[in-house]
Amino acid sequence: MLDQSKNNLSQQMYEFAKKIFPFPRSLTGDGVRQTLQAIKELLPDLKIHEIPTGTKVFDWEVPKEWNIKDAYVINSDGLKVIDWHKNNLHVVSYSIPIDTTVTLKELKEHLHSLPDQPDAIPYFTSYYRPTWGFCMAHREYQKLRDGNYRVVINSQLEPGHLTYGDLIIPGREKKEILLSTYICHPSMANNECSGPVVTTFLCRWILNQKKRRYTYRLVFVPETIGAIAYISRNLDALRQRVKAGFILTCVGDDRAYSLMPARKSGVLPERVARHVLALVLKVPYTKYTFLERGSDERQYCAPGVDLPVVSIMRSKYGTYPEYHTSLDDLALISPDGLYGGFLATKTAIEVIEVNETFKSTVVCEPWFSKRGLRAPLLGGTTLTPWSALVSNVMAYSDGEYDLLAIAETIGCSIFDVAEVAATLKQNGLLERVRECTPKPR
Amino acid sequence: MLDQSKNNLSQQMYEFAKKIFPFPRSLTGDGVRQTLQAIKELLPDLKIHEIPTGTKVFDWEVPKEWNIKDAYVINSDGLKVIDWHKNNLHVVSYSIPIDTTVTLKELKEHLHSLPDQPDAIPYFTSYYRPTWGFCMAHREYQKLRDGNYRVVINSQLEPGHLTYGDLIIPGREKKEILLSTYICHPSMANNECSGPVVTTFLCRWILNQKKRRYTYRLVFVPETIGAIAYISRNLDALRQRVKAGFILTCVGDDRAYSLMPARKSGVLPERVARHVLALVLKVPYTKYTFLERGSDERQYCAPGVDLPVVSIMRSKYGTYPEYHTSLDDLALISPDGLYGGFLATKTAIEVIEVNETFKSTVVCEPWFSKRGLRAPLLGGTTLTPWSALVSNVMAYSDGEYDLLAIAETIGCSIFDVAEVAATLKQNGLLERVRECTPKPR
Amino acid sequence: MLDQSKNNLSQQMYEFAKKIFPFPRSLTGDGVRQTLQAIKELLPDLKIHEIPTGTKVFDWEVPKEWNIKDAYVINSDGLKVIDWHKNNLHVVSYSIPIDTTVTLKELKEHLHSLPDQPDAIPYFTSYYRPTWGFCMAHREYQKLRDGNYRVVINSQLEPGHLTYGDLIIPGREKKEILLSTYICHPSMANNECSGPVVTTFLCRWILNQKKRRYTYRLVFVPETIGAIAYISRNLDALRQRVKAGFILTCVGDDRAYSLMPARKSGVLPERVARHVLALVLKVPYTKYTFLERGSDERQYCAPGVDLPVVSIMRSKYGTYPEYHTSLDDLALISPDGLYGGFLATKTAIEVIEVNETFKSTVVCEPWFSKRGLRAPLLGGTTLTPWSALVSNVMAYSDGEYDLLAIAETIGCSIFDVAEVAATLKQNGLLERVRECTPKPR
Repeated sequence: MLDQSKNNLSQQMYEFAKKIFPFPRSLTGDGVRQTLQAIKELLPDLKIHEIPTGTKVFDWEVPKEWNIKDAYVINSDGLKVIDWHKNNLHVVSYSIPIDTTVTLKELKEHLHSLPDQPDAIPYFTSYYRPTWGFCMAHREYQKLRDGNYRVVINSQLEPGHLTYGDLIIPGREKKEILLSTYICHPSMANNECSGPVVTTFLCRWILNQKKRRYTYRLVFVPETIGAIAYISRNLDALRQRVKAGFILTCVGDDRAYSLMPARKSGVLPERVARHVLALVLKVPYTKYTFLERGSDERQYCAPGVDLPVVSIMRSKYGTYPEYHTSLDDLALISPDGLYGGFLATKTAIEVIEVNETFKSTVVCEPWFSKRGLRAPLLGGTTLTPWSALVSNVMAYSDGEYDLLAIAETIGCSIFDVAEVAATLKQNGLLERVRECTPKPR
Repeated sequence: MLDQSKNNLSQQMYEFAKKIFPFPRSLTGDGVRQTLQAIKELLPDLKIHEIPTGTKVFDWEVPKEWNIKDAYVINSDGLKVIDWHKNNLHVVSYSIPIDTTVTLKELKEHLHSLPDQPDAIPYFTSYYRPTWGFCMAHREYQKLRDGNYRVVINSQLEPGHLTYGDLIIPGREKKEILLSTYICHPSMANNECSGPVVTTFLCRWILNQKKRRYTYRLVFVPETIGAIAYISRNLDALRQRVKAGFILTCVGDDRAYSLMPARKSGVLPERVARHVLALVLKVPYTKYTFLERGSDERQYCAPGVDLPVVSIMRSKYGTYPEYHTSLDDLALISPDGLYGGFLATKTAIEVIEVNETFKSTVVCEPWFSKRGLRAPLLGGTTLTPWSALVSNVMAYSDGEYDLLAIAETIGCSIFDVAEVAATLKQNGLLERVRECTPKPR
Repeated sequence: MLDQSKNNLSQQMYEFAKKIFPFPRSLTGDGVRQTLQAIKELLPDLKIHEIPTGTKVFDWEVPKEWNIKDAYVINSDGLKVIDWHKNNLHVVSYSIPIDTTVTLKELKEHLHSLPDQPDAIPYFTSYYRPTWGFCMAHREYQKLRDGNYRVVINSQLEPGHLTYGDLIIPGREKKEILLSTYICHPSMANNECSGPVVTTFLCRWILNQKKRRYTYRLVFVPETIGAIAYISRNLDALRQRVKAGFILTCVGDDRAYSLMPARKSGVLPERVARHVLALVLKVPYTKYTFLERGSDERQYCAPGVDLPVVSIMRSKYGTYPEYHTSLDDLALISPDGLYGGFLATKTAIEVIEVNETFKSTVVCEPWFSKRGLRAPLLGGTTLTPWSALVSNVMAYSDGEYDLLAIAETIGCSIFDVAEVAATLKQNGLLERVRECTPKPR
């Protein structure tokens, strides 16, 4: 666990998270652009797209662009009791501009705090309802005294654009593996700097691979409206090409692994994710149901889209106490946490790349010993584990079980199975067959 | 639970049970006619049919008609030790006429009692074997002293008719919901006055509905031979039209709920019955297997008929100690018990009426908030329960899940799902699709 | 359990095991021929085949023939410390001829013993790697002192033949039941005299049956190469005709029952074997998985062959401490053990012979009482067990359930079901339909 490259990578990811953490992201605006620019420094081929406000995307329409330069509340003593520059969660996202003086009572109608978490600034948005508001720690809220308050939000909510980025990395096959993440949350770390950070580094890793069987589609969008806009522009390609997809979200802390399945059960990425967690990484994890969804699987798995898309997360959104507050900060995530998130989806990709379906070229068992494929125990019906694996991979390679199904049947890692299968193929004992969807067993 | 209409209905059903309880029912004869006449007073459109003795019905033949006016046994002191007028269970049903004097020993060859239930008069029949017999409480049986006994059964067993009733209530669709019950048991309450009583009041409730999607077929027949005769006259219609059927039997006591499935598992009324009991009424129930069948599902589910027919019962026949004895009397059933039986099948009907299959008219999630379909929590990824339901109904409406399958997936009542689906349809977000049989999940 | 015929048969099998136990079997050679000759004395129609060394059989080639006349090791005192005549396990099977003098150190490189089982001579082979070796009890091994040892193996390893036997016993149908066993193990009793012994007596029992529905294919081959050679000569016939197959191995001790399924789950002989063990013999058993295979199912179930072949064993190979040592001797098996092995597969054959699919000739239930098929309980909805069985067999005979599926649904022996079905057929209530594969339930 201490190999240098892992440490390097973990640290690089954490540093990148620190870099993008403070940007004032929202559904739209310069915070999103700033984030995409930072990603583009690491992924120069990233394409950045702008969709004008008012564009129809399926049932929705691209909203006005929101930008903010400053926001604060000053009490009658001239003290700034809320200062957006200290934490961008202080302002309700998409707040309309305001510059006025109000009583405490009037102010409180626009304040949000969490009595049960008195030190946490909550995260609130008001994307589709024009209003303004501030969020603050309840402990600070309780200190507010009667009097007049100057309230300033120097924001713009005007026709502009929705910004997103994507990148296609070609492979030998046209079939695609989709990685999608979102870039609309302001200063929170697990949800959601971790998503674009890990996706960026996964993309760099993919680009570094010399051989790529599948084509990769990387998508950095604002959640919901961004995903919908993206799907509306790419629906046919997505439906024809996506073999498996992963939404990268909540991949930064080091407390848990979580699996969100697709709407339709048993799809390839779900099989792969379960295999990775249980038999490759061998970590405990919580399997949620699609009823507990909350991210862009809501769009990718919706009727009419129906892509096989899952999420392998660390602590799932909505399940940890710091979620959607200022406590979800850089101390909550860690280099190890990010690396675990990176490793899970990277391994899932490797599983899909390596998964093939083979068929025996011989009838009956092959003569393993002639080829040195059977540990030459003198006598001995007890096979070495490797010989047993050779025998099992051969026995199940009937053109119906893919390597993943064979590994699941045996209860071992697909990488061990694939290595054996490669040896058997080199020996002319297996031939690759057109992939087929294995029947449920 | 104390609303007036429920109380009224419960009482009306109980009074009607009291009214028909004493009629001397058997497979055939005036007791059956009397019962059907009483039902017809409540259901004027009921059609009463007579099938002549000797008519071939599939493998069977309609038996002679049996009627009885009186029956008794007098001991040598001139005392009536058995008197049919006191309880019509005293005579073995279909006993041939007799008027003779016998010794105690001879008499005992024709007496039936239950040593383990000394106060219960058992219920015996001898439909297809010409003999005579009396049933009595074992406590009375033990009091019989040596001597001669005058034995009189003033019965008739002669060519006549088998009598049954039916009623078709048309709906918008030709597909039918079948309700069948039997009218051949003499004075017993749970098994079997409760069946025709609850069926009669279900029929009145159906007639009161302003909108009926399905056509309803109500059948009041003597058990077994009556059901066979009915099926023989209506086989093609039944096989073409019956979408779901329910046999109403043992629906009068208040001690249990029971489910008898159809021969083929997973048919619509079974899915519906389980949903009603578990997720609508939320009552515990015993699920029996088809091996424990005992009523007219033996005919409706037989090879060559194979209708989807189940029974939602209270205490199932054969499982409660008073079954088929004089202890199954009007004290065993109750207004509440009858109402529970009524409610279960009524609710099942409502489920089938409301169950439809919808498909999203939009790609991706719709813009709920634009339409006020999302509780406008400021910020807030936590949805209200209603918003979550809206989201889930939309997410699963892919033209394959019917509303019942959606409700089962969510674990809530189909009526909540249907209400939300109606709202979504009004908003143009769902369209009805031709019903399809959902795949097992 | 003490009926004479069973005792006779058990004793005859045990005596035959004693007879063939000492023959020096190996993959090839006169020990195999001697064994087949002994079987042919009991099965005169057995055909014995010889395949020349070097013949290609799928991926393999028939090896040289190995014969041995004597082998021993003499110490410097002139004492025979190992003598093949005392136990033919002392020589590694397929040892090349040798006649030399070696030091103790050199000798030990060719000695095999089991420190954990100091009294057991282990069983070793070196079929495809030319070498020589001796096996001995570790207790004896430890007594060897420094000095020179004369080593003699008077063996021949030369072009010759592989010998096997087979027998086809015709039945009314061309579809076959395959029984296969192996004849290549030297003096060990459970694994593997029991296999050919029980198979021989099963064959005699089959020949004694006056009516045979299926054709029987009996195969006596050396394990692995023999099975592969046999399949290579008969592949088309096997694939077209084998309805169910059983490998007879480890059927001699009396400590356990074991089931090895086929590679594909749920095939007929697996259903049958489970039924036999659970509902006919009512014995506990261990169900292994195909990953734990180790006998000729490796060939019969291989991709490209894929026959429905299972094994019903007593103590499975590899699972009992005496396995593949001199402790697997005639004291380990017993007449009762052999009889249990015989009975399990014999019963499985009887199940397959009796299993048919019937369809009701009537619509609705038949009029059982008219035909005396319903116990004439006066009144009585409680059926006798026999009447209940009659009713259930009739209810499930819809042309889709075979008798085995009906028996499994009811939870009773297929023989009870078949007896009832025969009665119903005689009464014209059931007709046989073309067999269909029942859907999994």
